[in-house]
Amino acid sequence: MAAHNLTKIAATPGKQDILITREFNAPRELVFKAYTDPQLYTRWIGPREVSTKIVTFEPKVGGKYRYIQRDKSGKEFAFHGVYHEVKSPEMIIETFEFEGLPENGHAALETVRFETISNNKCMVKSKSIFLSPEDRDGMMQSDMEKGIKESFDRLDDVLESEKKK
Amino acid sequence: MAAHNLTKIAATPGKQDILITREFNAPRELVFKAYTDPQLYTRWIGPREVSTKIVTFEPKVGGKYRYIQRDKSGKEFAFHGVYHEVKSPEMIIETFEFEGLPENGHAALETVRFETISNNKCMVKSKSIFLSPEDRDGMMQSDMEKGIKESFDRLDDVLESEKKK
Repeated sequence: MAAHNLTKIAATPGKQDILITREFNAPRELVFKAYTDPQLYTRWIGPREVSTKIVTFEPKVGGKYRYIQRDKSGKEFAFHGVYHEVKSPEMIIETFEFEGLPENGHAALETVRFETISNNKCMVKSKSIFLSPEDRDGMMQSDMEKGIKESFDRLDDVLESEKKK
Repeated sequence: MAAHNLTKIAATPGKQDILITREFNAPRELVFKAYTDPQLYTRWIGPREVSTKIVTFEPKVGGKYRYIQRDKSGKEFAFHGVYHEVKSPEMIIETFEFEGLPENGHAALETVRFETISNNKCMVKSKSIFLSPEDRDGMMQSDMEKGIKESFDRLDDVLESEKKK
């Protein structure tokens, strides 16, 4: 098991964004790869008890993605979006929509920046913006915080095993 | 010249979105077409004194777009984005980025809904969300309000001429 750094999640009341910062003990090139390689991505995205199946994964400008997560009880959650920007190893900008809401169109926009701290350390800064504070709060209430922290802890493990290759 | 309805633009201080509502004297199918047909789109997007040249225009999920606007002095402004959703004749969700900023990545997400009021009337509701209130205010200060109002007045003219076909 890798050592886990702190995940900072900020969601100011009344605003419609979520800011996440997380340090990783790996070069940003490797972390960027873990975001854009479907084999690696499915190994860390989502909380621990969830398995992820990728339907579409095209990390390039205009590319689409869709994945389905399945929890222990067999319940499925699907997500999809498109890539506005994929600039290796610096930045990914993508849309994001959870398919389980009563109506379509509750999309969000996520900007992820990968910044080098030193040879073997980088910082991931993610900012998600939602159509309204209500959409944002809905996402926060969906156990997202736990999901993100567990995702990043799993990502630590993926990075450790990749560094050994 | 067509009659022009009122364009309502709301940008609450401290928030990071812009809400725009505008009624059109045309069926929503035709207004939707004016948003997704490149020939029609270049005839209305932008303020009156600006001409628009489309570089890429793929109004479908995952499609890209890029266009360049040129004002009377010859100054050029380029914009690009990708389509998250294109659901005829109801909804378009797209990303949006002005290429003239000092750094890349200041993307916004725009949701446009086309709602039928009656046979020959529809309402367009657009919501744009920005990465920060500062990004939003920067967009507002760029004469966007004038640009939007003039765009929609030009769109009235396009719709009138299309209705006569």
